[in-house]
Amino acid sequence: MSKLLVINASARANQSHSRGLTAAFVKHWTKANPGAQVMFRELGIANVPHMSGEWISAAFKPVADRTEHDLSELAISDEYVSELHQADVIVIGSPMYNWSIPSPLKAYIDQIMRIHETWQPNKADSQNPYTGLLKGKTLVLLLSRGSSGYEAGEYNHHMNFQSTYLKMIFNIMGITDIHVISINGASTQSQKLQEDIDAARTGIEGFINSHSRRFS
Amino acid sequence: MSKLLVINASARANQSHSRGLTAAFVKHWTKANPGAQVMFRELGIANVPHMSGEWISAAFKPVADRTEHDLSELAISDEYVSELHQADVIVIGSPMYNWSIPSPLKAYIDQIMRIHETWQPNKADSQNPYTGLLKGKTLVLLLSRGSSGYEAGEYNHHMNFQSTYLKMIFNIMGITDIHVISINGASTQSQKLQEDIDAARTGIEGFINSHSRRFS
Repeated sequence: MSKLLVINASARANQSHSRGLTAAFVKHWTKANPGAQVMFRELGIANVPHMSGEWISAAFKPVADRTEHDLSELAISDEYVSELHQADVIVIGSPMYNWSIPSPLKAYIDQIMRIHETWQPNKADSQNPYTGLLKGKTLVLLLSRGSSGYEAGEYNHHMNFQSTYLKMIFNIMGITDIHVISINGASTQSQKLQEDIDAARTGIEGFINSHSRRFS
Repeated sequence: MSKLLVINASARANQSHSRGLTAAFVKHWTKANPGAQVMFRELGIANVPHMSGEWISAAFKPVADRTEHDLSELAISDEYVSELHQADVIVIGSPMYNWSIPSPLKAYIDQIMRIHETWQPNKADSQNPYTGLLKGKTLVLLLSRGSSGYEAGEYNHHMNFQSTYLKMIFNIMGITDIHVISINGASTQSQKLQEDIDAARTGIEGFINSHSRRFS
């Protein structure tokens, strides 16, 4: 049975729109897939370490040359990467903070972009210089934003450093089956916001129903 | 005399191309402006705190309503913001990590995007919904990137989540006089890289020489 990894990046433990969506996802997923294994990775309130200079040296060193200190620098990264390899479906719940992703999610991405673990150089093809190593996985981005218009062709698209970036970076790691479900207008308290929340929850149910046969 | 604020975001304390550029900037700046006041803000190796849920509550609360706990949540942010207001010229040295900025620099941006301190809502104009409060300042971005082609019209521009983002976010805070000097091909050891480094240093000297009258 498919394994689900749920990642939460909001700084808010409560009253977070993106956490509301990941909770709805897990609820419907476990209903559609009784007994399914679900892993959780907390980022938003977990003090994710920033990548250090020693981390960089350790990660780019041949495995056989790594010292005890190198291994300890990479320990959290190893844990994050192992979870990603185990998962069949990865769900990321993330707000947009200042038009980008929360800093703990960027710190996480710097920790998981590991040479020979999640990507490797593809020297033979200068047009495709990276080969992703996270193959056959599905990524669902459950996003919250203060206002609307951030998708391709819309008026705020040039200010979208959130879903645009997440899609690009997971593409490089080999994940091409990526779905975006978002709540917009999170900074307002309007009727429109409630409609957005309802539509996102319906979108989650629809996604799980249409994909449950495929993932079972 | 103009005050300079120098911000370093590289995870590497040594062998950092962006730190090499900020050091060159300071050297020429102090030569051109003897006795100039220079402030330093370390981010890359300083464990910059991620913005918390309590931070968000505190920052969006009226000043008079803030508790002791709120003030302590905002203490580092207050320090960062105060430095920005004091500075006339701000220099940021930053590498590109995974096509974006280092996570400590994103954490810093989340700390300095403070309502009524660095920006405020401009409700009268839906086309310009923010008013920046960092006025009359110059920002110099001293950047390092693994490869070239990231500027507008070039082949890697769609993967540039570094200078594009930095320009946008400081624009919102009111800084429009922004200069970019970059080293490209930092992941190679080629002659091209050395030429890039030399050109960046020449660019820094040229910038300081042409601006020194203006800032004195």
